Order: sequence, then C-alpha cells, then structure tokens
Amino acid sequence: MQQILDDIAAEMASETDHGKVADYIPQLAHVDPNQFGIAIATPDGQVYAAGNASTLFSIQSISKVFTLTIGLGKLGDGIWTHVGREPSGDPFNSITVLEYESGRPRNPFINAGAIAVVDAIMMGHEPKATLGEILRFVHFIADDDSIRFDHKVAASEMQHRDRNAALAHFMKSFGHIKHDVDKVLGVYFHQCSIAMSCEQLARAGLFLVSNGVNQHTGVRVINAQQSRRINSLMMMCGHYDGAGEFAYRVGLPGKSGVGGGILTIAPGKGSIAVWSPGLDHVGNSKLGLKALELLVQKTGWSVFSN
Amino acid sequence: MQQILDDIAAEMASETDHGKVADYIPQLAHVDPNQFGIAIATPDGQVYAAGNASTLFSIQSISKVFTLTIGLGKLGDGIWTHVGREPSGDPFNSITVLEYESGRPRNPFINAGAIAVVDAIMMGHEPKATLGEILRFVHFIADDDSIRFDHKVAASEMQHRDRNAALAHFMKSFGHIKHDVDKVLGVYFHQCSIAMSCEQLARAGLFLVSNGVNQHTGVRVINAQQSRRINSLMMMCGHYDGAGEFAYRVGLPGKSGVGGGILTIAPGKGSIAVWSPGLDHVGNSKLGLKALELLVQKTGWSVFSN
Amino acid sequence: MQQILDDIAAEMASETDHGKVADYIPQLAHVDPNQFGIAIATPDGQVYAAGNASTLFSIQSISKVFTLTIGLGKLGDGIWTHVGREPSGDPFNSITVLEYESGRPRNPFINAGAIAVVDAIMMGHEPKATLGEILRFVHFIADDDSIRFDHKVAASEMQHRDRNAALAHFMKSFGHIKHDVDKVLGVYFHQCSIAMSCEQLARAGLFLVSNGVNQHTGVRVINAQQSRRINSLMMMCGHYDGAGEFAYRVGLPGKSGVGGGILTIAPGKGSIAVWSPGLDHVGNSKLGLKALELLVQKTGWSVFSN
Amino acid sequence: MQQILDDIAAEMASETDHGKVADYIPQLAHVDPNQFGIAIATPDGQVYAAGNASTLFSIQSISKVFTLTIGLGKLGDGIWTHVGREPSGDPFNSITVLEYESGRPRNPFINAGAIAVVDAIMMGHEPKATLGEILRFVHFIADDDSIRFDHKVAASEMQHRDRNAALAHFMKSFGHIKHDVDKVLGVYFHQCSIAMSCEQLARAGLFLVSNGVNQHTGVRVINAQQSRRINSLMMMCGHYDGAGEFAYRVGLPGKSGVGGGILTIAPGKGSIAVWSPGLDHVGNSKLGLKALELLVQKTGWSVFSN
Repeated sequence: MQQILDDIAAEMASETDHGKVADYIPQLAHVDPNQFGIAIATPDGQVYAAGNASTLFSIQSISKVFTLTIGLGKLGDGIWTHVGREPSGDPFNSITVLEYESGRPRNPFINAGAIAVVDAIMMGHEPKATLGEILRFVHFIADDDSIRFDHKVAASEMQHRDRNAALAHFMKSFGHIKHDVDKVLGVYFHQCSIAMSCEQLARAGLFLVSNGVNQHTGVRVINAQQSRRINSLMMMCGHYDGAGEFAYRVGLPGKSGVGGGILTIAPGKGSIAVWSPGLDHVGNSKLGLKALELLVQKTGWSVFSN
Repeated sequence: MQQILDDIAAEMASETDHGKVADYIPQLAHVDPNQFGIAIATPDGQVYAAGNASTLFSIQSISKVFTLTIGLGKLGDGIWTHVGREPSGDPFNSITVLEYESGRPRNPFINAGAIAVVDAIMMGHEPKATLGEILRFVHFIADDDSIRFDHKVAASEMQHRDRNAALAHFMKSFGHIKHDVDKVLGVYFHQCSIAMSCEQLARAGLFLVSNGVNQHTGVRVINAQQSRRINSLMMMCGHYDGAGEFAYRVGLPGKSGVGGGILTIAPGKGSIAVWSPGLDHVGNSKLGLKALELLVQKTGWSVFSN
Repeated sequence: MQQILDDIAAEMASETDHGKVADYIPQLAHVDPNQFGIAIATPDGQVYAAGNASTLFSIQSISKVFTLTIGLGKLGDGIWTHVGREPSGDPFNSITVLEYESGRPRNPFINAGAIAVVDAIMMGHEPKATLGEILRFVHFIADDDSIRFDHKVAASEMQHRDRNAALAHFMKSFGHIKHDVDKVLGVYFHQCSIAMSCEQLARAGLFLVSNGVNQHTGVRVINAQQSRRINSLMMMCGHYDGAGEFAYRVGLPGKSGVGGGILTIAPGKGSIAVWSPGLDHVGNSKLGLKALELLVQKTGWSVFSN
Repeated sequence: MQQILDDIAAEMASETDHGKVADYIPQLAHVDPNQFGIAIATPDGQVYAAGNASTLFSIQSISKVFTLTIGLGKLGDGIWTHVGREPSGDPFNSITVLEYESGRPRNPFINAGAIAVVDAIMMGHEPKATLGEILRFVHFIADDDSIRFDHKVAASEMQHRDRNAALAHFMKSFGHIKHDVDKVLGVYFHQCSIAMSCEQLARAGLFLVSNGVNQHTGVRVINAQQSRRINSLMMMCGHYDGAGEFAYRVGLPGKSGVGGGILTIAPGKGSIAVWSPGLDHVGNSKLGLKALELLVQKTGWSVFSN
C-alpha cells in the first residue's frame, strides 16, 4: 500500500497542469498550487501517507458529510423533512432548482442542503453551542483534539456570503429555515473552515469504511444502515455536477471541497483523503481526481467491479 | 439463496398496495397487477427463481443498458460525444434540460439519451439491420435465442410517440440526431418492446457481475473497465428522479423499466431481475423496489457496506 | 407623409450595417440584404410608399396576425382555450416554457402558439381547405387577389421542421394539438410562406387601424373590441424577446417576421409595413426597426404620447 | 366624467367577490376589503373622484414608477446598465430568471429590478438621504407635501424580507448591487410603504399624461421621450404575469401594487388611480381591474383603438 501511494505521489509531482485554485476569498486564493498529499486509513488501524499528507488545508464542503452524520444521529430519518436525497444535476450553488421545488433543497451536499442541515441541528441553540458540538464530533471521529476552525477563513466567507445568503433567505421565505439567517450562515462558514491534514481526514472517514464503527478506536459512530446511506449519498451527490464523472472514473463514494480536498470511502478497504488545491472546471481537485483514478486502477477498489 | 427468494416472494404476495400499472398504451395497461417474479443468476452458473419468474414482460427502459453496451462496443469512448454521463434530476422525458444543454442529452438512460444512442449505433443502416443486431446481442448475453420483440407493443408506442418524437426532433434541430426521426424512433420502440422473463433477464445481466465476462457461458462481452462504467451509470442514472432513493434503499446499480421490471447488479455476487407491473410515483416497480430492499437486507449485498 | 417616407428611405440607403439575413433555409438566405421598402396605408384610402415597397418578400411570422384574426372570428373567445395571451420573455421557439405550462403556449405569436392556432382553425378539415381559407382571408383584407403562397419556401421549411415539429409533438403529447402533426405543420409553413409587398401588407393591416373596419373597402373585418385586442397582443408579444425594446423605441403594436418584414399599427393614423431582410440579434429587421423609430419621431404617432 | 365615475363606483359597490387582501404582513392583512375608490386627474387641472378616493392606502409597487423616473432623471440611459426593459413572463419575485440572466433583472418593475434601481440612485449616500429625495419627488409631482412613509409598514416588510433579501443578495453575488443589502432593502421597503389616496396618486401621475409636463402645476418633470418610455414600460411590465391580461382588457399603461392600487395613464386624456384592497390570483386589484375595464369601455380611451 505504501508503495502504491509513493508511486502516485511521484506521478502527481510530474504533472504540470494543476488546475485553478479557488479565488473567491483571499485565504484560498493564496494557497500554493504545487502541493499534493494522500493518506489512507485502513480498518486494521494503519495510516499510509505520501506527499504533503500532514499539511493542513480547508476542508470546506467535505464538512457536509460530518454535519449530515450529526443530523442523522440527532434526528434520524427526521433529517429528510429538511432536505431531499436526489442528485441535482446543477452547480453547487444553483437557486433555480430551489424555486421549482418550493425552497426544499435536493440533497444535503449542495450548499442549500448543507445550510438546511445546519439549521436542523441548531435546534434553537446559539451558533457557539452548535459549533462546539461540530468540533467535538470531528475530534471524536478523527481521534484528534488538535483540529480547529480557521476563523480568518470563516470571516472571509461571511464577508463574501451573498450567494449563500440568497440561498438561505430564499429557503427561509418558504419556511425551510427556522433560525436567523446570519446565525445559520455563521455556523455553516465555520464548519467549512475546519483545517485538517490528509492524515486526519482519512482517519475521520474510517467509520464509513466499517459499517459505522471506527475500527481504529473501536467505537461505533452510527449504525450500519446509516453508514450505508451516507455512502450512497456521497456516491450520488458528492461532486455537484461532476458526480457522474467521479462515479465513472473512480467508482467510490466521495465528497470534494473547494479547498482541494476529497474524502473517498472504499467500504471494507479504507478511507482515502487526497488534497491538491488546483480545481477542474466543476470545482473538484484536478490532481486529487487523477490520483484516485490511479489508486482504483492499482487496487481494484471500485464498488462496481468484483 | 432459494430460501431467501421464496421468503421474499411470500412476503410480496401478502402486499396489498401494488402501485399503478402504466396506462399510456393499452398493451401495458391490461397487464394483471397481481404478479411478482424474482430471479438471481450467480457467477457459478446457478439461476434461483421465485414467483412469476418465467412470465414474459416488456423490458422497456431496461433495454437501454443493452444498447449502451452495444454502443460502447462499437464506438468505445466515442459514444460520449453523443450523450453525457451525469444524473439529470429530472423526469425521464423532460425536454427542458435538453434546451439548456443545446440538445445534448445528459445520460444514456433518460429517453432522449437512449434515442441518441440508437442514432449512434445505426451508422447509416436501416432499422431492420439495427434491430437484428440488438436482438442477436440479447440472445448472446442471455444465452437464449427464443427472446423476441413484441411488435404490438412497438406499434402502440409508435402511435403514442409524441413526447419522444418531440425529444428526437428537438435533438435533430441541434444536429444531435443524424438519421430520420421516425426510423430512429422505430428502432427505439422495438428495443423497448423486447419481452423477457425474470430468469432470462437475470442471465442477460450476468456479464456485469463479473467484470464483463458472462461466467455462465464463459464468454467475454466487454472489457472490465467498460463493465465497471456501465454499472456506475446504472447507479447514477438508472431510475430517473428516483436514482437517489434507489441508491439509498438498495445500494446497487440498477435499471428499471415502465413495464415493472428492474435489473440489478451485485458485483461479484449476482445479477438480479425482479418484476411486478405496478409502479410508484416516479415510475419504478413498487413491489420490485421493496423486494430488492429486502434482498439487500438479507444478503448484505449493498456496495456501500462491507 | 410622402416626404417623410422618402426621407426615411434615403436615410436607410446610407446605412452600412444591415444586420444578418436569416439563413436556416436557402430561400431566405439568398435574398439580397441591400433592400429596404416602406409603405403606409391611411384610413382615407391613400397608400404612401418608398424604396422597394412593391417587391415581394416572405411575410413569415407576420401571418400569425392573420390566422389569429381568423381564429377569433371562428371561435370568438374560445380561441383562448388553445393559447394564452401573456408575453413569454423567451426566444420564439423555446420549448422550456411549454414544459412548465403543461404544453399550453403562452401566446399566439410564439411559434408554438401559432401552431396551436392553426390546429384550432382546422376543425377537422384537410390542410388544403384551411389553406384556401387563409389565402381568401388575406385577399379580402388586402383587397388583392394576386397574393400567393411560395411553395418552395414552404417545402424548404418542412424539410427543416425539426424545432417546430418538436414543439408540435410536445403540445400533442399534452393533448393541445388535435390534428396530425405533419398536416398542422404543412398549413403553418404555407401560411408563413405567403409572399407580399410592403404596399400589399400595409393595406392588409388597415382593418386594425380603424377598429376592425377596412376603410379602404369600407368592409368590417372584425368588431371593435377584437381589433383592440389584436393590437394589444401585437404590442405585448409581437417581437419575441424584443417586445420590450420595440415598445420602448417605437411605441406601436407591431409584428415582425424572420423574412425582414414588420407590420405596425398606429390606431386611427395608419398601417405601416417596412421590410429589409437583415435581422438584429433577436430576429427583427434591423433597418425596419430603425425606420419605424424615425417615423414615430417625425410623426409623433407613439401610443404612449399625446 | 364625474357621472362615469359615480356609475362605476355604484357598480363596484354591488360586487360581492372582492378577491383576497394581501396577508404576508399584518398591516396589509387588516385592511377592510369592502372599499373602493377612483380618481381621475385631467390635463386641464380637474380631479374627478368617487368612492373612497381620499382614503390613504399603501402604494407598494406603484412607487416603482416614481423611482424609475428619478433614476432616468439622474442617470439618463445609464439606468439601463442596471436593469433591462423586457417583460418577464414570471411572478414578481421569481429568482429563476435572474439566474439564467446572470443576476441582471429583466425590468424595473419586478422586485429585483426595483431593488436594482434603488441601488442605482443611492450613489453612495445613506438610506436617509435617498429616502428624502424620493419623498420630495413624490411631493413635487403630486403637488402635495402631506404625503408620508408608513414606517410601520416598512418595518413589517423588513421583518418579512426573506424573498427580497434573497433577490438582493443574489444580485450582489453577481456584482449588480453595490450598496449594503440591508440598506438598499431599507430604502426599497420605505418607498413601497408610501401612503397616498386615489386623488393624490392620480395627480402624481399627471406628468405621464402630457409628455412629461405636469399640466396642473405647469412644470416639466421629464422630457417627452422619457415620458413615452416610462409609459411603454408600464404597458409591457406593469402587472407581472398579468401584463398581457391588463393590455388585453384595459389597453392602457398601468402599474399595480399589492396594496390594491393601480395607477393608469391615458396619454392626452388623464391619469387614473383606482384602489380596492382585494387582489386576483396574479396579485392585481380585482375590483380595480374591473373598474378600469368599465372606464375604458365608457370612454374609449384604450390606446389600441382610435
């Protein structure tokens, strides 16, 4: 396994087209594009890593997997009154689909859906309480208390919040958001600002590899059915309008973030985190996607083969 | 395995809500809704069956898997210049998405996409030649030369062709259809009219279970990568706007037809065909979906668990 | 008045940018763009003309005003069960709006609406009978029996019918078209192929100037309320997504055609026909629109001033 | 004229179906629906009135005519870089059209467009300054310094701002709004809260009757071309998705408000204000529309007849 990761990291180091770093906030725009990291956590407790696998990056939308898990834990199937579970076939921040569906987001991984999940788990509490809960949950699943919000990133997102504010006010006009819009957005932008390394992220995803149990710590995070369902949502909706492409090329459940990270789950095999800041035209990490395609070729881990 | 199927068939027999049989053509409207069949073909050559598993039914959109396979065989990746591979988040016959994407269908499993695939594989030939090719391919993968078109169903579909004719003319206005619209529709409606039993259908799907090789006959149908990719497309786009629901509840690649059939692939485990004519509100077999959910619970075959 | 027209024709002769001639059928593509004609018929029976005012051109969508008038005459307000009367804010051949409104066209001047009007006035008759009726009506209002269909244009449109065939089949799939699609399109393309000169067209529009009475012949064509309503529809919907621009710059009811003609009504003042084959980016005659803007400045005929 | 208004008011008093009062804020929901007023200001300085013509009501969207006039005065044609001038064919608060046109509103009379006009006329000033400017302008055109904002209405709109906040943030995300969203909305909601009677409103519209000159005061407000253009915009876009219906039934430029008022201009003849709080299904005053239809029948003032 270590050899495979080393080979992939070497191959990625020779790539010249890294894609384009996200530039809508300065904190993301200034990241050096010439970085690549990969880490795999396996059920036996091992973590393999190569490249810049211990460098912290902004996990951004990958955090939506964690808040959905919290939501399923707190509300069970009740979470589906807040958000649907169908792929959208639209860019991550489209407002049109919202209008035709009366303000109810299609799934928890488009921005509108993730904002609705935040609103659902706040349950009348203040942002600070919900943020504490989210961070404690990430500490728990990653078995690492050093993980932190990046308040500068969160503040910058808040300043450039217009598209997300439009989505949130729009949902609120249909009654799909209960709390104050700015408070909900405050939580949402902090959740997205969490800084993690590939090694931390791979470990955090381990509970989805083994039917809800983090085999590194031995602790059950959610039940087996919930684990299966989160994986299905990552497969169907984890990459905006690039979901079909990811399934076609990688064939594993995954969730990408605009910071250049991708968390990918190979059930029974391992939790894979890759990171490279340059993005392709649909907003997924360009080298990250390439690396995952290579990994699946070398390991045969696609869920669509045997 | 036989016990599991018998239990499922018994449980389905006690269901009272069978959904609503498709009624847009008389040949489908007159099918008795109180029927249920299930069959599983496994890589070792066994076929297990229960209920009305040898009754012939109209496979309808399930045929799209077979023509896509033919298209991949004939054109390789060239097939993707004719059709995309992203989920659509729209009903199977929506024309709106076509307009915003300048007439190129999103994937090969919505009607527009399947019509574009037919146009792609005709390659200047007459309908008769293409239909012969399609039928021979189905005989080959199912290892059964008795499978036939139902010409009455095809003729009736042709008479009620307006929605599909709109899609085809619309694509042709953008240059995405090369042949005469009525000829393309003639092939398309015949392909959909193929009558098969659950047992035949399960056998026909076997090549997708074992990386492109039909282990019953020992013959390679397509290569491993193509097999993986067809499975990914069935997972992402196999059930129109019910794709997310199917992934969530069943967790396997599948393709449904309005005749009440569903072909489902469990990589490495088996090819499953279920049939019950009553449909749910998105057009998938109501009991078929329930039966598959039960089967996955009993076998643990979801690709999202280990 | 003659002086005004001569001045306008002279000014148009000096224009160098004539726009782009429609090129989707060869019969339109081969028209010489360096032509401009204008004619005004006034209630006192005079016809003033300048430029190429006696040259025949394809009236195309201007014919929709005449078939709507026939429809109002035959069905009265019943015509509005076939078609709406709201502006569409979309290109002339958009199919998306049709889908969201279940196949009922927004107004009689978009293609889908004009096709629905043809279907409404056919009333079970064969195309030949309806075409005879349309031509007799145009002879009657223009007081000129020499006006003819251009069968070559109609045949060429039929050959390139895909977009309009898509619209018609789509409406038929919702039950909004009763007759055979190809027969309805045959009538529609012939109606659009009528060849008229500016002088003939100006005379044909005269009944809309004087509350339904053609003051040249003294004969009532429709009642005053119907005349007022047709004018309102020309104002609101006569120029596809350029309707606002036309109202803003010209301020009169008008209907344009892709052949480069525009029929414009100044209630109580005159019926104005302009023609120049080059089109602007929304498909209206570029010089035609300029000429009308000049005319209104010189005459003060806008309905929005006093 | 007085007799005509008395007859109309009598007829309206006998109507039993008043439509449904707007209920999204309590200040509008509590207005007594059994009220009807009408007033006409003519170029000779007369004001005719009947019914509750001196009762104050919330002019709401009618105010968009006044801010557009201010915008045209301050920026000239530069206002059209902020907003288009085509009818939208969509509800007043649709966000979908905005997305397909990259955040630029179709016209100044849908909510998004009116908000963009407010942003354009603020020019870096604080809300208080802009509000002072708007109120002074209304005093000037109505020749009445007693007209006031209704701060309770404005505050209530601000509290229920979500749909409009979504529109504003959405436009800001495309750079079409320069000022702080909440400040722009503050101005917008105050402008909509202006309370006027039919008599005041009819007088305020008089400058649009006589090519830009308020003949009551003798003062020119805007030039003749601008007056004509505002009238054309009221005709094309003054009633959301009821614009075609209004043109068809009334045939005059008009602008309605959700408070139940309608300002209508008969060029050269008079400025007409009607008010009745009950609305029809597209949000226009039900009795108001009926009364205008009657008035036009009795006076022949439609711009589409002679």
